[in-house]
Amino acid sequence: MKKYSFKNDYSEGCHPNILEALIKTNLVQQNGYGYDEYSDQARELIKQKMNHQNADIHFISGGTQANLLVISSILRPHESVVSAETGHIFTNETGAIEATGHKVHGLVTEDGKLTPEHIQSVLDTHTNKPHQVKQKLVYVSNSTEVGTIYIKKELQELSAFCKANDLYLFMDGARLGQALTSEINDLTLEDIASLTDVFYLGGTKNGALLGEAIIITNDKLKEEFGFHIKQKGAMLAKGRLLGIQFLELMKNDLYFDLAKHSNVQAMKIKSAFQNKGFQFLSDTFTNQIFPILNNSQIEKLSENFDFYIWKKIDEENSAIRLITSWATSDEVVEEFIGEVSLL
Amino acid sequence: MKKYSFKNDYSEGCHPNILEALIKTNLVQQNGYGYDEYSDQARELIKQKMNHQNADIHFISGGTQANLLVISSILRPHESVVSAETGHIFTNETGAIEATGHKVHGLVTEDGKLTPEHIQSVLDTHTNKPHQVKQKLVYVSNSTEVGTIYIKKELQELSAFCKANDLYLFMDGARLGQALTSEINDLTLEDIASLTDVFYLGGTKNGALLGEAIIITNDKLKEEFGFHIKQKGAMLAKGRLLGIQFLELMKNDLYFDLAKHSNVQAMKIKSAFQNKGFQFLSDTFTNQIFPILNNSQIEKLSENFDFYIWKKIDEENSAIRLITSWATSDEVVEEFIGEVSLL
Amino acid sequence: MKKYSFKNDYSEGCHPNILEALIKTNLVQQNGYGYDEYSDQARELIKQKMNHQNADIHFISGGTQANLLVISSILRPHESVVSAETGHIFTNETGAIEATGHKVHGLVTEDGKLTPEHIQSVLDTHTNKPHQVKQKLVYVSNSTEVGTIYIKKELQELSAFCKANDLYLFMDGARLGQALTSEINDLTLEDIASLTDVFYLGGTKNGALLGEAIIITNDKLKEEFGFHIKQKGAMLAKGRLLGIQFLELMKNDLYFDLAKHSNVQAMKIKSAFQNKGFQFLSDTFTNQIFPILNNSQIEKLSENFDFYIWKKIDEENSAIRLITSWATSDEVVEEFIGEVSLL
Amino acid sequence: MKKYSFKNDYSEGCHPNILEALIKTNLVQQNGYGYDEYSDQARELIKQKMNHQNADIHFISGGTQANLLVISSILRPHESVVSAETGHIFTNETGAIEATGHKVHGLVTEDGKLTPEHIQSVLDTHTNKPHQVKQKLVYVSNSTEVGTIYIKKELQELSAFCKANDLYLFMDGARLGQALTSEINDLTLEDIASLTDVFYLGGTKNGALLGEAIIITNDKLKEEFGFHIKQKGAMLAKGRLLGIQFLELMKNDLYFDLAKHSNVQAMKIKSAFQNKGFQFLSDTFTNQIFPILNNSQIEKLSENFDFYIWKKIDEENSAIRLITSWATSDEVVEEFIGEVSLL
Repeated sequence: MKKYSFKNDYSEGCHPNILEALIKTNLVQQNGYGYDEYSDQARELIKQKMNHQNADIHFISGGTQANLLVISSILRPHESVVSAETGHIFTNETGAIEATGHKVHGLVTEDGKLTPEHIQSVLDTHTNKPHQVKQKLVYVSNSTEVGTIYIKKELQELSAFCKANDLYLFMDGARLGQALTSEINDLTLEDIASLTDVFYLGGTKNGALLGEAIIITNDKLKEEFGFHIKQKGAMLAKGRLLGIQFLELMKNDLYFDLAKHSNVQAMKIKSAFQNKGFQFLSDTFTNQIFPILNNSQIEKLSENFDFYIWKKIDEENSAIRLITSWATSDEVVEEFIGEVSLL
Repeated sequence: MKKYSFKNDYSEGCHPNILEALIKTNLVQQNGYGYDEYSDQARELIKQKMNHQNADIHFISGGTQANLLVISSILRPHESVVSAETGHIFTNETGAIEATGHKVHGLVTEDGKLTPEHIQSVLDTHTNKPHQVKQKLVYVSNSTEVGTIYIKKELQELSAFCKANDLYLFMDGARLGQALTSEINDLTLEDIASLTDVFYLGGTKNGALLGEAIIITNDKLKEEFGFHIKQKGAMLAKGRLLGIQFLELMKNDLYFDLAKHSNVQAMKIKSAFQNKGFQFLSDTFTNQIFPILNNSQIEKLSENFDFYIWKKIDEENSAIRLITSWATSDEVVEEFIGEVSLL
Repeated sequence: MKKYSFKNDYSEGCHPNILEALIKTNLVQQNGYGYDEYSDQARELIKQKMNHQNADIHFISGGTQANLLVISSILRPHESVVSAETGHIFTNETGAIEATGHKVHGLVTEDGKLTPEHIQSVLDTHTNKPHQVKQKLVYVSNSTEVGTIYIKKELQELSAFCKANDLYLFMDGARLGQALTSEINDLTLEDIASLTDVFYLGGTKNGALLGEAIIITNDKLKEEFGFHIKQKGAMLAKGRLLGIQFLELMKNDLYFDLAKHSNVQAMKIKSAFQNKGFQFLSDTFTNQIFPILNNSQIEKLSENFDFYIWKKIDEENSAIRLITSWATSDEVVEEFIGEVSLL
Repeated sequence: MKKYSFKNDYSEGCHPNILEALIKTNLVQQNGYGYDEYSDQARELIKQKMNHQNADIHFISGGTQANLLVISSILRPHESVVSAETGHIFTNETGAIEATGHKVHGLVTEDGKLTPEHIQSVLDTHTNKPHQVKQKLVYVSNSTEVGTIYIKKELQELSAFCKANDLYLFMDGARLGQALTSEINDLTLEDIASLTDVFYLGGTKNGALLGEAIIITNDKLKEEFGFHIKQKGAMLAKGRLLGIQFLELMKNDLYFDLAKHSNVQAMKIKSAFQNKGFQFLSDTFTNQIFPILNNSQIEKLSENFDFYIWKKIDEENSAIRLITSWATSDEVVEEFIGEVSLL
């Protein structure tokens, strides 16, 4: 029997509702390239949920693709983007942004989150124009790559700072569902739409086979985005595949239920570690947790479960990363908690 | 009731076997990024079918993506690619290749097919080195964008010419199934593998929801291709979605059966037009046909069917394009033929 | 003794006035990067001569550099530029424009000049948005690469067409001096400034050691151009070298005198061929002429002079290219004419 | 009267020998694009001086241009370059390297110099292939942007580390003359040639009007470099301008005499500050020094001299940067030292 994997939130297929919808619609002829009825309906539902009728919404396949599309469509050749060093674009996308011609500034942060002070520090060291790149875009992830989230006050400050400094604000929402359903969250989808210029809702890590919904609220950034999608090879002939999935995820808030489920499962496991007195690399409230264990404890848990050893603390101890998903069952969580209680 | 559309071969979803496989495998945990078991099995089946164990096979989402990945991974900054003017990369990909930094030479051809003479003409006019780009890659489509196919002798000559001139040969196989099952075809998958350096097998236009299988047979071109896939945003987290589809398509030659079906349906319609004495823009034997009709005939057929008016011949006549697919039913074909017989 | 070369107009150094100015200013300390006094004075003189105070003027090193800077600074990633097939950017810059990410449409012309009809033909075949690149810029050379020039009516029509179609018009003026001093010219520098959005005045081919003056008259294209110059490696630390040269060339219209001299020398040679009844590949009135000679005549002339065999006409005859320059002396021209008279 | 400027080493024109040579050769016809006799002779002299006959040598205009040419010609799309954070490519070239598609890793160093440990730290955090860029090139400057130099042992260790890790080593030699003539230097030009794969000899900051000599010693990096020069707009039609300058600079070791002169002048000023007990931001032995002064001292010196305030130390004190050059006269140095003695 294979071990259960807590390695990531894309180990399974998709929510059954999506499969049912694929079957039901399979032989209905539709226009290609995102002009199908399902995509239209999905766009309409998203607009309703964020209470923002003027947004442009584009469905594409994955996070790296979304990031490079958005960033390369916005920046002129001499402009750059500011990110946390832990940001996906800075470290985990094989230089995808640089490949489109733009520098990414990577900033050291405590918790994967940017503040106005971080960004100001970049502006302060790039005043020798035109010998240095010009910062034009700020990239944040919510939830971040280390499991943390932005609260409303933080995002408001960031948004105000960007506006004051003629910077666009772009939110990578590969795990935005998890952020918005975290127990400590105080942001709404409507807040995100009004505080950022462009963001995306991740499907791949929240119950879809693939798919991210790029949502552009700033009119200046909307123009001719379709050209970029096509040019970067991101326009699916059968765009219906993306539309159908987002339509199902948006119906009855399935998207948020799935995200909340993944958070709840992670929090149960977090409690189990806390009850045993374990420390964590960072205090997270989404579907990623980073408990610190000693080597023999890690070895013990590895017998029946798969996970990443995230960071070596010292010779005896390491933080591991556990990720839960929409598909993580109560049974698996209970079984794992049972093993934790025996550590 | 909506009209039946002959506009393209990606108006429906996918072959039912794929949906069944998606359901059956849905909750099985798998590695991401193409390292799942289904992708492995699909790669194995493809290698068997082309009798070439040493190929590298990568599954990605679509044709433009495949083209830009292959071409940008091969060429150094000063190198260019030669294509027919009708080639997808020259005219229908929003400058995707140029966006990666490379010139595409577009050649006027009679039938969408390149010959050694075409390529020699580019070499002859680019001898002023280093003031002109260096040709390094030849791009052909089979079947072509105008429905024609390469026969064995033609591909052998092209392949020999490329080898003699230190050029790589790349075949866009978005509709390779249709080419290989055309009634006039004399090429095998094994021939394609041995006569080209890299090619792809199209899934999107032959029964998959999405997906193209890039097959690299030249060892020099294999190196580190995965980096390119990731960098261009083409690496799906749930690579299983592509693996499952190609696995189903390769089982029992479903892929070729579907392609043949689309060809047969087109040939039936072609015969119907021929029987009525219509001319064609080009003589095709795959799933695209281009009959020339007068305006009132076009209007008549448009009442119940959708298709593109492809090229205006004169004030009274135009060629239309009709595309059939794996999903085009006998009933629809008969109904359409019925209408043709009344023209 | 070496043969005299008519191969190009950059075989010698520079006009003596420039050398004198270099000596005179050599030890005066100046700001770098184009902020020196000589560059300021040169910009002022150019503005006066074209009667256009609001232009932005930047001095850079060469034609390919000017072309790639202007074009890449203007176009967004999905936009393209239209050129004659003979245009320098299409064929003789090693794919410099494509290397910045943009497609160049190459159009077959009779005489190296674009008309509204040419451009319209590109627009007509690129209506399938967003699957095709968007044309945004028209590139013309004056004088062209085949020695012809635009007359006022032609440039007015082109300019009007571009404005009507939301296209920018860019003139490559590597040999603009020769164009404006041609005996058939009816355009002024002021006309050029008002009918184009951006153009440049070539120094390299008209008496400078190196240098082109990029002149931007459209306000939309001025923004932050300095960043592009620096990023492309085109910003000289000692910008004074360019400023000093353009200052000398602009003083007392030396620039136009030198250009006219090169034209006059070419026209004398042209007359010599005409008097002997020779035909020409094209009828030019600038410093490039293309007489058609038979092989033995070519061999004869080659004994004492160097030039390019430009185009084979048939087995017996070829067009040769002869280029004169600011430095071509009366003695050399007379000597060459003497040889022509003996053919 | 204008103040004397210690702001940089490119405030004057060029060494008089160069002007004389320009005059002497001015009307001699030469081939373009670097194929002139002077360039050939200059290449020969450089090869002799570094005792390396197999190098390829290319003359281009400036440092940013040299950097982007070398780096973009070497790296494949997914490969990156490692630099100190103070490295010119990381911070002062408007993203020139990223504009060619490549990530630059910026490392915090004490003195602007990279060690194997620095590079190893990047390799260690980039093991998640293919999700992260692949390091392929190490960029060092000698002398560095903060005036320090590599000694032989350091460069040997770096070179060995690069070879062991399949990394190329590239030295930015914009001020290589100053490094090699520094009083603490123990490297020879021959060492540089054998310990790096490619480097350049800077002319712009050492007595030329413009020009850097790119020297490629690794055979793998030589191939088709001319195409890159042309494509990036870096190929001067009158390449003679660069050849003549390097020929003059190489004759009788003028290049090294000029560099040494600039170092000596800086060291005299350094001694003056040391004698008065001033501290320095870093201990340098080339033509850049960074003494720390209080605000009133800075104000006093500013009355008759120009220089940059480099780094604020606290409210009362800042480091200033003083740069001397081949053209800095003894008189100016004495005058300045006189003022220092009065602080």
